[in-house]
Amino acid sequence: MGLGRKLRYGMIGGGPGAFIGAVHRHAADLDGEIELVAGAFSSTPQKSKEQGRILFLDPERVYDSYQDMATAEAARPSRDRIDFVSIVTPNHVHFECAKTFIEAGFHIICDKPLTNTLDEAEILCRLASEHNVIFGLTHNYTGYPMVKEARARVAAGELGEIRKIVVEYPQGWLATLLEETGQKQAEWRTDPARAGVSSAVGDIGTHAENLAHYITGLEMEELLADFGTMVSGRRLEDDAAMLIRYKGGARGILYASQISVGEENALTIRIYGTKGGLKWEQEHPNWLTLMSQDEPARILKRGNGYLSRAAQHYTRLPPGHPEAFIEAFANIYRAVGRTIAARLSGNEPDPLDRDFPTVEDGARGINFIHTTVRSNAERAWVDARYSPPGA
Amino acid sequence: MGLGRKLRYGMIGGGPGAFIGAVHRHAADLDGEIELVAGAFSSTPQKSKEQGRILFLDPERVYDSYQDMATAEAARPSRDRIDFVSIVTPNHVHFECAKTFIEAGFHIICDKPLTNTLDEAEILCRLASEHNVIFGLTHNYTGYPMVKEARARVAAGELGEIRKIVVEYPQGWLATLLEETGQKQAEWRTDPARAGVSSAVGDIGTHAENLAHYITGLEMEELLADFGTMVSGRRLEDDAAMLIRYKGGARGILYASQISVGEENALTIRIYGTKGGLKWEQEHPNWLTLMSQDEPARILKRGNGYLSRAAQHYTRLPPGHPEAFIEAFANIYRAVGRTIAARLSGNEPDPLDRDFPTVEDGARGINFIHTTVRSNAERAWVDARYSPPGA
Amino acid sequence: MGLGRKLRYGMIGGGPGAFIGAVHRHAADLDGEIELVAGAFSSTPQKSKEQGRILFLDPERVYDSYQDMATAEAARPSRDRIDFVSIVTPNHVHFECAKTFIEAGFHIICDKPLTNTLDEAEILCRLASEHNVIFGLTHNYTGYPMVKEARARVAAGELGEIRKIVVEYPQGWLATLLEETGQKQAEWRTDPARAGVSSAVGDIGTHAENLAHYITGLEMEELLADFGTMVSGRRLEDDAAMLIRYKGGARGILYASQISVGEENALTIRIYGTKGGLKWEQEHPNWLTLMSQDEPARILKRGNGYLSRAAQHYTRLPPGHPEAFIEAFANIYRAVGRTIAARLSGNEPDPLDRDFPTVEDGARGINFIHTTVRSNAERAWVDARYSPPGA
Amino acid sequence: MGLGRKLRYGMIGGGPGAFIGAVHRHAADLDGEIELVAGAFSSTPQKSKEQGRILFLDPERVYDSYQDMATAEAARPSRDRIDFVSIVTPNHVHFECAKTFIEAGFHIICDKPLTNTLDEAEILCRLASEHNVIFGLTHNYTGYPMVKEARARVAAGELGEIRKIVVEYPQGWLATLLEETGQKQAEWRTDPARAGVSSAVGDIGTHAENLAHYITGLEMEELLADFGTMVSGRRLEDDAAMLIRYKGGARGILYASQISVGEENALTIRIYGTKGGLKWEQEHPNWLTLMSQDEPARILKRGNGYLSRAAQHYTRLPPGHPEAFIEAFANIYRAVGRTIAARLSGNEPDPLDRDFPTVEDGARGINFIHTTVRSNAERAWVDARYSPPGA
Repeated sequence: MGLGRKLRYGMIGGGPGAFIGAVHRHAADLDGEIELVAGAFSSTPQKSKEQGRILFLDPERVYDSYQDMATAEAARPSRDRIDFVSIVTPNHVHFECAKTFIEAGFHIICDKPLTNTLDEAEILCRLASEHNVIFGLTHNYTGYPMVKEARARVAAGELGEIRKIVVEYPQGWLATLLEETGQKQAEWRTDPARAGVSSAVGDIGTHAENLAHYITGLEMEELLADFGTMVSGRRLEDDAAMLIRYKGGARGILYASQISVGEENALTIRIYGTKGGLKWEQEHPNWLTLMSQDEPARILKRGNGYLSRAAQHYTRLPPGHPEAFIEAFANIYRAVGRTIAARLSGNEPDPLDRDFPTVEDGARGINFIHTTVRSNAERAWVDARYSPPGA
Repeated sequence: MGLGRKLRYGMIGGGPGAFIGAVHRHAADLDGEIELVAGAFSSTPQKSKEQGRILFLDPERVYDSYQDMATAEAARPSRDRIDFVSIVTPNHVHFECAKTFIEAGFHIICDKPLTNTLDEAEILCRLASEHNVIFGLTHNYTGYPMVKEARARVAAGELGEIRKIVVEYPQGWLATLLEETGQKQAEWRTDPARAGVSSAVGDIGTHAENLAHYITGLEMEELLADFGTMVSGRRLEDDAAMLIRYKGGARGILYASQISVGEENALTIRIYGTKGGLKWEQEHPNWLTLMSQDEPARILKRGNGYLSRAAQHYTRLPPGHPEAFIEAFANIYRAVGRTIAARLSGNEPDPLDRDFPTVEDGARGINFIHTTVRSNAERAWVDARYSPPGA
Repeated sequence: MGLGRKLRYGMIGGGPGAFIGAVHRHAADLDGEIELVAGAFSSTPQKSKEQGRILFLDPERVYDSYQDMATAEAARPSRDRIDFVSIVTPNHVHFECAKTFIEAGFHIICDKPLTNTLDEAEILCRLASEHNVIFGLTHNYTGYPMVKEARARVAAGELGEIRKIVVEYPQGWLATLLEETGQKQAEWRTDPARAGVSSAVGDIGTHAENLAHYITGLEMEELLADFGTMVSGRRLEDDAAMLIRYKGGARGILYASQISVGEENALTIRIYGTKGGLKWEQEHPNWLTLMSQDEPARILKRGNGYLSRAAQHYTRLPPGHPEAFIEAFANIYRAVGRTIAARLSGNEPDPLDRDFPTVEDGARGINFIHTTVRSNAERAWVDARYSPPGA
Repeated sequence: MGLGRKLRYGMIGGGPGAFIGAVHRHAADLDGEIELVAGAFSSTPQKSKEQGRILFLDPERVYDSYQDMATAEAARPSRDRIDFVSIVTPNHVHFECAKTFIEAGFHIICDKPLTNTLDEAEILCRLASEHNVIFGLTHNYTGYPMVKEARARVAAGELGEIRKIVVEYPQGWLATLLEETGQKQAEWRTDPARAGVSSAVGDIGTHAENLAHYITGLEMEELLADFGTMVSGRRLEDDAAMLIRYKGGARGILYASQISVGEENALTIRIYGTKGGLKWEQEHPNWLTLMSQDEPARILKRGNGYLSRAAQHYTRLPPGHPEAFIEAFANIYRAVGRTIAARLSGNEPDPLDRDFPTVEDGARGINFIHTTVRSNAERAWVDARYSPPGA
């Protein structure tokens, strides 16, 4: 690799009990290529310190605020400064935090959705470009090897021209007014002040949109969305469905639901073209079904030699030894990390490692959220075309 | 039963090579309670005769036209006249044929969709009522025992109040311009003159609509549909998706597709309520999944003692001995047949036997087709409320 | 076909409430090629008459005993005599009944296992041959189209040389002492006087053995069996497992269990050869999985044009319209029936129709039962080679 | 925790390209509680050094041999000495290596099978006990949360008394003479000098045995094994099947196969008791099926609140976010690591953390291998009872 050491990072958010912070740390730890050395884990300094202790960090590098961390880390000699920062706070903090670290010259991994407004998202796109910062966004589902295989098969033309995309993301965890029971996740994800204008679309619909875009490369032209707030007393939609027309003529159905009782995290995509179809299910991520008109369906399984280079590059285990969510998440970290390491050591990254969601994907996602909100409000088809700055 | 003999029927349509005619005959034959004694199997007399021979019918009762059959059978003494007629022709013939036999006093089993226009459908509703004719419509998917179980569980409140219905019916057989290769099924189903105003919705979308209605009893309030004619040169839509708002607030997604390459007949329904959810897949019809928030999902399997009386009534085999399409279809025949037999013998039918789709369901389906066509044309939400005459 | 009429049959056994008799009648009825015209449905004349009435039979042809039926039917003019007889009684009656009808010159369909002793089985083989009688045995699982596909693929060499067979048949219905609760099925199937020397192997293990033999053609060389009578108070084994060595070197595992709580009728076979493997599950009978070393697994689905002629010949519905147990059972009836019809009309049967289990398969099954009993008693490997008379 | 730092370990084996070494490192890294600080990665010093560099280790602590490592690490001050050693070499090296480190006072994690002979295994049991060393064995499949759930359900009596165990472990990767193509894994695993007396049983059959024992606690009484060497030219068996009688009367079927073409790593267990049954499949590890006689089957899914404390303790992600092989393997590391950390800090470990396979399980596995070899050689039932020293 050339860098000759593990990559160092700091984390913003991810204090005691936070789900997604722990996931990011597992993802960073998994390959032994990256180490956590600093953090501002909570807006409550006491909690930040507690998390630092749990993680065996040098107390000096456990900060009371992300601003302190940016200042102090930037002031350290480069030989032990953090190389990048991971932002895993609730949505409304992403923007200021990312802006601060970009301007301080640090590379970024940020949770999704990128920001709460499209203006903020586009500002980050421009800043990242101006400061030449590597910016990875954890649309983690694209880290699955069989998602990469799906993309490779579509790119190779095995499905022919795409005609239809059905992507769905049902969950059931918000089927009751959980946010009033003290559950933290439910609280902030249904709070407009922290989650933004949308809950179901913002939290999970954007993953569905990103997944479809990642695999097919198709751009939306128009969409018509219908939002439901099915749980009385909730402040944001907990169920959203939409019809989509893509450029070039393909049709789409996308839905995200948080009130589908009994569903856990059932992100699923089906794509049909003129020559074939495919199906992938996040809860059974090691398999990809390929279908055609005149031949039996094929079940492609992770780890096999018949898969694409991309799928094989992002696989750690042989066939039948399943990989799952953390490994896919770690693929984002490994890809961003190796790209940063190459930059730091003056090398070109392996093109296979430059395959991760970026700040531009983040802006696309924010535009998507706001477009669906508008369509729902107008009860009409709306223009869904969008290009992020610099794209 | 009281009748002391098999019920006798005649068939209109179902000549050599016709798929659905053969299915109706298997369904009628399966239980040994009904026998085919007459037919007008084709508009080509030669073909009708050929089919009669294959079926070992008395040549005297193989007719050149359905009109001849109606006249001749009505003229026979009641002791050997047909008790009902099965109409299995292409859609555009249903109306005149059904009208003729209703007016001649015969009970009816008719394939779906009922007619090509709503006027025709409503006329049949009124005629059937006036002539006191039993009229069964072969929305055969509601004949599956586990669909009846789903309905029973919803009725018993196990799902709580329904919030969301996702019903999909993807097929792939029309992914190419099959109608220009001489394939008869493809020819008439994509021909506006014979199939009516819709292909995907008319042929299969109506099954999806009927299934959702049968299980939940919910009535549509509004819908927004998007049709695609994905195969160039085709004259009717081969892909249709819609968002639905039901009375009472539930939301729905329904889609029907004939260009989903690799899909065979993948009718699937998922329903989510305040307390639980369920999933049923036509291609694996012996299983029904029930989900809840705080308990493991349960897999209910056909044939078991823990199922509802309705599910058990429509089951012929013990658990693990799978039943399938023909048995479900036969359940419609058995239900209609026993209801007719009860009428003929002056008895009340078993309420469990009166559970079959009727001419009113047919009218509801025709209204549904035309409503989706209108919404697609207007690119807007439209009023979807409807009550068939007499309902 | 030339016969110009439906084939006529009589049934022995299958009185009120009998499971397997009803299955045979559905199977015979399904295709409209065969009609039931006579029966001796029970050893209790009153019950036989009652069943005759339920089935709308001519009371003259509902007999008090199978002997009466054999005599009376043989005395009828050939123009309305039964063409064959279906024997669906408990096992211990098969022999005398089959012998009687063979000697009276009738063709036979008999339920399995063929007889209770090997002597009896071999006598029937010889008699059937001497009297030139067509004799079908309802090892119904070989009637499934995808089982025929499996056989065709093995025959075509797609798996290479067979190395390993794993065939299992777990059920759970006898996990308690059901035979003491008045349940008739449980009573006779666990009664040595009626079921013979074995319950689990005799009732279901023979199906497993027949299935493996049908698909691969392999002959056993040695086997070692272990029987368990897991439910205290039971008189025959309710769980049996065995290791098998086949001629040519392949290895096998076969087990049959009636105490596998929660299992319904989970007959499953997996076969591995030098080049590929396959898997088929009776509870999901429309699918066949083909595996190979360097290619994705393929899911073959009933009804498709890529299947063998045999699979297509035994299929009634297009892909995605599932067929199941009754259709497979009906395939045995249709095959035997058409072979009889060809004989009666002086024609050669279509070779595809001559594909059904015979009296020789029955003798092979009886030998198998007795061989496993012997191995279990001796707790040792025993010689399992066998050729039925005339084979 | 009390230790206030990450636990430190060294690795023996796991040089460039070794599959299982990489897995151990992922497992150790995943939770950020353990760090690799030393290694003797290969018997070729050059390769050991190369691996050390890849892993960013201090070159001083990358050793030419495990003996050097034991000596040098033992000589370091306790404040930076390794806390334990991971032994991931081919089987034949385990014994000497483990002995050396136990005698030097280090705790151990060792890959399975423990040793090549039973004598060696029992010596290690005694040594570990004498030196009061914590010894974890990576029977990693017991690290899966849903395996722990299975065990908890059995312990709670939900299945009643166990009657039947079917555990199978088919793989297909050795269906050809892979060991002659230069594939390292295949070479040593089929080489009696390195793998010991068995390939299929030693490599994977022991996992199956351990899994059954872990879940049920049942002890074997007798077994009868049949080995096949299906690939010509191979020196050890590549297919093994056995029948088992457990103490208390339960029956078992266990098989391990490396020539089941198309199978990847399909370890599966089914257990049936007087009241219920269960099924778990390693390739779909997040689900556990529970069956009963009179209720629908239940699908228990990892991460839910209805699961046992053990299952929840070993879970990192919420429902629907699948965990897999590495997470299960990491559960062994975390459990052993936390037990060591408690010891080092003078605390009692959490009882939930003391749930990992030990050197005694290793001895049991070695006895199992040799018992099956003997049974196969004698072609007879053999005594399978065994208690490891000190158990």
